[in-house]
Amino acid sequence: MAHIDLQLDEQQFPGITGPMKFRPETAEPLNQLAEVLLRGPHTLTRGERELIAAYVSGLNQCNFCCNSHSAFAAAQLDEGMGLVEQVRQDLDNAPVSAKLRALLRIAGAVQSGGRNVTPALIEQARTEDATDLEIHDTVLIAAAFCMYNRYVDGLGTFAPAEPAAYAASAQHIVTNGYTV
Amino acid sequence: MAHIDLQLDEQQFPGITGPMKFRPETAEPLNQLAEVLLRGPHTLTRGERELIAAYVSGLNQCNFCCNSHSAFAAAQLDEGMGLVEQVRQDLDNAPVSAKLRALLRIAGAVQSGGRNVTPALIEQARTEDATDLEIHDTVLIAAAFCMYNRYVDGLGTFAPAEPAAYAASAQHIVTNGYTV
Repeated sequence: MAHIDLQLDEQQFPGITGPMKFRPETAEPLNQLAEVLLRGPHTLTRGERELIAAYVSGLNQCNFCCNSHSAFAAAQLDEGMGLVEQVRQDLDNAPVSAKLRALLRIAGAVQSGGRNVTPALIEQARTEDATDLEIHDTVLIAAAFCMYNRYVDGLGTFAPAEPAAYAASAQHIVTNGYTV
Repeated sequence: MAHIDLQLDEQQFPGITGPMKFRPETAEPLNQLAEVLLRGPHTLTRGERELIAAYVSGLNQCNFCCNSHSAFAAAQLDEGMGLVEQVRQDLDNAPVSAKLRALLRIAGAVQSGGRNVTPALIEQARTEDATDLEIHDTVLIAAAFCMYNRYVDGLGTFAPAEPAAYAASAQHIVTNGYTV
């Protein structure tokens, strides 16, 4: 049971979907932000951006968000869930591009605190041809998931155990996005 | 100098204002979220909600956000900056209502991680007559500032040293809000 009465069936509205239904006024900008960051026009693919979201959510130990965005990433990456799990378990050796690895390291620094993003991390990303926009959006995706994760867990929401629930959401998000 | 080229005069666009000008597509939902949470119709005053934002920003050691929202809180609280500083320095003994103290403790737990919000913290807030909406919004304000703070510091933005800069922003925000 969530910490507050969300006035709905929590099994049917798990994780962030419950509080978003409870408070539609804040759900709107929250969904709009996710849509721009994770699905808007970009030089990083949707799969790569969802991978950053999944990675940060894993570091924050937010089961609902990590399972959700891992499924969303897997559904939009050629390499599927195998790659998502490799990145989450061993970023140094996961078979991602050098640029994406450098961006994921920036995301990891943001997760532990904004001041932990060092000039060396930025320089590494630049060496691998990351653009200012890619660095900006990586920082903001990581920062945003430090919010979404705390929102979901700070209200004690329900997270389904079965992977099928997240795979079903992935199909919905891939098809419709965050704002429908 | 910020970690990326924001393509503007950083002295003129300090803190979050630089990245927001650099990336207006994400600035829009970020400002919309702040407007609803900190200024929308509510049983908590605007000053109380800005105090929660300032408190969390202080815990995250984000100078720009802490100075900004401390000034915004002070401008909208009868007790002014003295109360903001007391809350930030010694929450247990600061002269705030028992309800606001309980909500600030929830906000502090969210800052350190969503899973740190315990049933006991929620129960204490309820005992002091906090509503579900007040608890929800406290959790989301705290979570959102874990994002804004990381966004500002993760990009290495410039924070003015002089208090006058923040007092001037406070007048702008109190008059116009976040979305103008």
